[in-house]
Amino acid sequence: MAITNFLYDMREVKFVLKEWLDMEKLFSLPAYRDYYGVDDVDPIVDTTFKIARDILGPIAKDTDQIGARFIDGQVVTPDSFKKAMATINEAGLGASNADREVEGHLPYTIYLANLEILAADNLSIIAYWGLSSGAISVIQQHGSEYLKQKFLPKLISGEWGGTMNLTEAGAGSDVGANVTKAFPTETPGVYKIKGNKIFITTGDNDTVENIVHMVLARVEGARDGVAGLSLFIVPKYWVEDDGSPGNFNDVICTGVEEKMGVHGQPTCSLSYGENNECYGYLIGDPPDEKGRAQGIAQMFTMMNEERLITSFQGLSSSSEAFLQARDYAKQRIQGTKTTDPKGPKVRIIEHEDIRRMLMVQKATTEAMRALIMKTCYYLDLAHDSEDPEERRFAEGMFQISNPMCKAYATDQAWLLIRDAIQTFGGYGVCTEYEVESLARDVKVSSIWEGTNYVQSLDLIGRKFTMEKGQVYKNWITDISTFIENNKNKAGFEKEFEIMSEALADFQGIMQQLQKYGQEGKNQMLPLFATRMLDAASQLYCGRLILDQGLLAAGKLQELGDYHYDAKFYRGKVASASFYVKNVVSQIGFVRKVFEIGDTSAIDMDEECFG
Amino acid sequence: MAITNFLYDMREVKFVLKEWLDMEKLFSLPAYRDYYGVDDVDPIVDTTFKIARDILGPIAKDTDQIGARFIDGQVVTPDSFKKAMATINEAGLGASNADREVEGHLPYTIYLANLEILAADNLSIIAYWGLSSGAISVIQQHGSEYLKQKFLPKLISGEWGGTMNLTEAGAGSDVGANVTKAFPTETPGVYKIKGNKIFITTGDNDTVENIVHMVLARVEGARDGVAGLSLFIVPKYWVEDDGSPGNFNDVICTGVEEKMGVHGQPTCSLSYGENNECYGYLIGDPPDEKGRAQGIAQMFTMMNEERLITSFQGLSSSSEAFLQARDYAKQRIQGTKTTDPKGPKVRIIEHEDIRRMLMVQKATTEAMRALIMKTCYYLDLAHDSEDPEERRFAEGMFQISNPMCKAYATDQAWLLIRDAIQTFGGYGVCTEYEVESLARDVKVSSIWEGTNYVQSLDLIGRKFTMEKGQVYKNWITDISTFIENNKNKAGFEKEFEIMSEALADFQGIMQQLQKYGQEGKNQMLPLFATRMLDAASQLYCGRLILDQGLLAAGKLQELGDYHYDAKFYRGKVASASFYVKNVVSQIGFVRKVFEIGDTSAIDMDEECFG
Repeated sequence: MAITNFLYDMREVKFVLKEWLDMEKLFSLPAYRDYYGVDDVDPIVDTTFKIARDILGPIAKDTDQIGARFIDGQVVTPDSFKKAMATINEAGLGASNADREVEGHLPYTIYLANLEILAADNLSIIAYWGLSSGAISVIQQHGSEYLKQKFLPKLISGEWGGTMNLTEAGAGSDVGANVTKAFPTETPGVYKIKGNKIFITTGDNDTVENIVHMVLARVEGARDGVAGLSLFIVPKYWVEDDGSPGNFNDVICTGVEEKMGVHGQPTCSLSYGENNECYGYLIGDPPDEKGRAQGIAQMFTMMNEERLITSFQGLSSSSEAFLQARDYAKQRIQGTKTTDPKGPKVRIIEHEDIRRMLMVQKATTEAMRALIMKTCYYLDLAHDSEDPEERRFAEGMFQISNPMCKAYATDQAWLLIRDAIQTFGGYGVCTEYEVESLARDVKVSSIWEGTNYVQSLDLIGRKFTMEKGQVYKNWITDISTFIENNKNKAGFEKEFEIMSEALADFQGIMQQLQKYGQEGKNQMLPLFATRMLDAASQLYCGRLILDQGLLAAGKLQELGDYHYDAKFYRGKVASASFYVKNVVSQIGFVRKVFEIGDTSAIDMDEECFG
Repeated sequence: MAITNFLYDMREVKFVLKEWLDMEKLFSLPAYRDYYGVDDVDPIVDTTFKIARDILGPIAKDTDQIGARFIDGQVVTPDSFKKAMATINEAGLGASNADREVEGHLPYTIYLANLEILAADNLSIIAYWGLSSGAISVIQQHGSEYLKQKFLPKLISGEWGGTMNLTEAGAGSDVGANVTKAFPTETPGVYKIKGNKIFITTGDNDTVENIVHMVLARVEGARDGVAGLSLFIVPKYWVEDDGSPGNFNDVICTGVEEKMGVHGQPTCSLSYGENNECYGYLIGDPPDEKGRAQGIAQMFTMMNEERLITSFQGLSSSSEAFLQARDYAKQRIQGTKTTDPKGPKVRIIEHEDIRRMLMVQKATTEAMRALIMKTCYYLDLAHDSEDPEERRFAEGMFQISNPMCKAYATDQAWLLIRDAIQTFGGYGVCTEYEVESLARDVKVSSIWEGTNYVQSLDLIGRKFTMEKGQVYKNWITDISTFIENNKNKAGFEKEFEIMSEALADFQGIMQQLQKYGQEGKNQMLPLFATRMLDAASQLYCGRLILDQGLLAAGKLQELGDYHYDAKFYRGKVASASFYVKNVVSQIGFVRKVFEIGDTSAIDMDEECFG
């Protein structure tokens, strides 16, 4: 539903942006010369918070209960959406941030911190500019000057929207099975498009004047599979060279899915060229003489960014659910303390199990945020550092972290929001308290933009082997060096002992994988990949949240326990400790199960499933 | 939503009822002398399956999309509900089964196996007779002859419905905080009732002529807390002594909650005596001179049964979700095999990760079913065995298993249905495929009838200490004897090695608990109780599913691999193996975390949560 009574922990957001990440370093880069430094952070994120609370909060009920409807072949959004989108665009929080070439553009780190806040209040609406933002990146990086001039200004201003068109009814995770076709016309670079796609988020809607679809299609004669796919810009309305809108481009919305959540997002089926009048602009070059095309690589520009945005869906919803549960637990009176059973009735936050659930939520969302924001930071360095070695290192860290961000955050969200619902007791499933809507809204995030299994294959099969394993080595070194440098820090001995064990266990998992490989047991990787991604994420999250814990402990020492801000730092130290002791400590279990190596799931005949 | 295209694994249900549980023993008891024996099972459960498929399936969409509506102060159900309820009653699948005194009544084991099948198709509708069934039990066990004659016949026939009225706005898990009052009248046994309750499932509805509310209230002068609560029969319409319906009894439905799921179940707020004209019959005796009343013990007759029924909600939904996912995976073509990447496109059931998810679902639902059906079996023995020692043993096993059934099955359901949704890919969140509705419907089951935390306190704090720990000892002996007797069974060596380790780990957890107790760390129990219940359930489920696996392995040896039924038994062996190796193996992790004993969640100041 999104949340009417929006809460957000801005202290935590600012800790990440102003204290933990080295943002001064980013702001000192030429790309960000228009900024003073971290002092710029407060006004930006505070404005975002206010817009989330005051503009997106009030449309929460419209988002869930009215939603985006399919009426007479068109998608109609609630009127309140159009007004909200206008404010988002005016405030510069929309797709304009995807413009990496304009003076004064925000680092990803800040842009996505803003997105986190907005998504926490309304997961549906962020797709309207989140996908435009991906389209802008693709056109900016791969489009000709002609295409840039034609499409970028109105995408950036938010007058037009962008979408991402991969999935077909017979081609979901298997993108290579796409059958949408493109036929050259007499105009170079312009192709006739024919085919159908499904699951196109915001594939039609009335919040924008025109929609710019980024469509994967196969040029006649190109090879089969992903390598033969090209990427096309297919506008809903053709665009004349003077920028004025031309004819309807024969992109028909044939239906909108009814979903369990994100009702404010139309999930459209699109048909291109039903009347043979659909045209698209090819991005980049036509397929080469071997039929190899550039589309999938171009689409990955967009996909990588969308994956990172998807990770924020998991983070934002979990975080909002936690804060709603926390506030409820502070008010709701029920039962007595276990340590004083005859004493007065207390608020449920005084019960041990409520504390456990709140702490799981607090610590895990903070660990997820550490992972995701660090990944944004690496993405910025990879783009904007002046040192090529640093760019390369950061690019590797981004590549290895991105699938963890996407899969870990969206998988955890289902569990964390469950704990928030449970904290509310019976009210947790009542729509009045809205927390149930976060579970409904977030579920799809483990599926789209590459299922979490696809992420795990990407991590273990592709990212861990990038640059002959150098990227993996850098990542492991980052963790082991951190442990080595800090293992004797007073008060954190147990945490580092667990981290050392967990690192050894994770390396044990990788050795076991190698062993299985040598034995020709190649199915062990896909069979255990999701669990390995989980273990990798927990290990890395442990390293990052513990880094935050050390920083917080230092601040505490500096400020003393009576400083007004001390409670935040104590909470941070507790989060680090809790996460390492209760979560990271289980990586050994994944190792154990992997070494047991049960293959009954794949050995069993299919018919034995009944 | 419930499921239009209903599937159920009747082979598995019959394995449990006809091969695994010793039903011949039950049927040979005097209470069941009207039955021939296990040959009676097939016609009963086959009829139930047909009614689920043909009567409940077609009303699935009405259940979710129309649901129970609150119109002009009354709850209105879809017309199709009334017809379905009539069929359920005619077929003898309704509340009539709660009548334990009638000749030819079903054992709980069969009655609840039927309920599993019906619940799998429509979780909403089973509440309509599930709660009546609890009311019947209470009246039959604790009511006077007068009350029995007045209320039982029409509750049993299904003409009237029963409900369970505990929760008040200020008294959820803390039942003792109830403030609904009862005042004696001039008629002995009749009290004036005044108060309000919330979350009363089917608290008002038009499927029955009258509603018999079982209401907890405090007689003027009774003591505070649960010990002072009495239980009253408060009909919606007063019942004259000739059985004819009298006046409206001033029980007003003041509202119906909007919920994420089970839309077919009205969750009502009730007001008693707003016009001072609400009367109820006291069950049993008035509070004694010390103000102690009998209500809570009587309510627990109902509550224990409702907890067991709730466990079926978790089991049924998970099982249905699995079967829907399995059938989808068998049809949906996507991608190539990892072992033949250039080969033909295959159905997704040929992918390792889909196999893993299906196997998690298959094995865990079977383990849950083993646990729950064994518990039903013990409940029957506890009631009907002729041997008092056996009754006592069985009662203990029922008492210890019931909170595990309730909490483990409903917690797992959220995870298992998630895996079913994930198997469907993007379609998993679309209402068209209905699997998403199972997640929405099942969520509340971890909360109502005692939250899963309450179950864990019941297990560790109460059940494990019953009869000075004898019940716990019996339960542990059951597991250790099973391991001892079978640990050398060929083909199961690894499984029993893991079981032995898991048993030792579980006992280690209990020793650690004792140690914490000796150190005065009494908050460790509530802080870790939910994890301990999980570990206990996994251990016991491992013991039971492995028992099934051994039985299946024996059958396989007997029938040979080419017998038409061999695939079922191979599937069962695989489930046992998978569950032990992938799930039971993690009990050591709970021990490890408990020994680390992190208390940051309770040590931290509340204000550190932000």
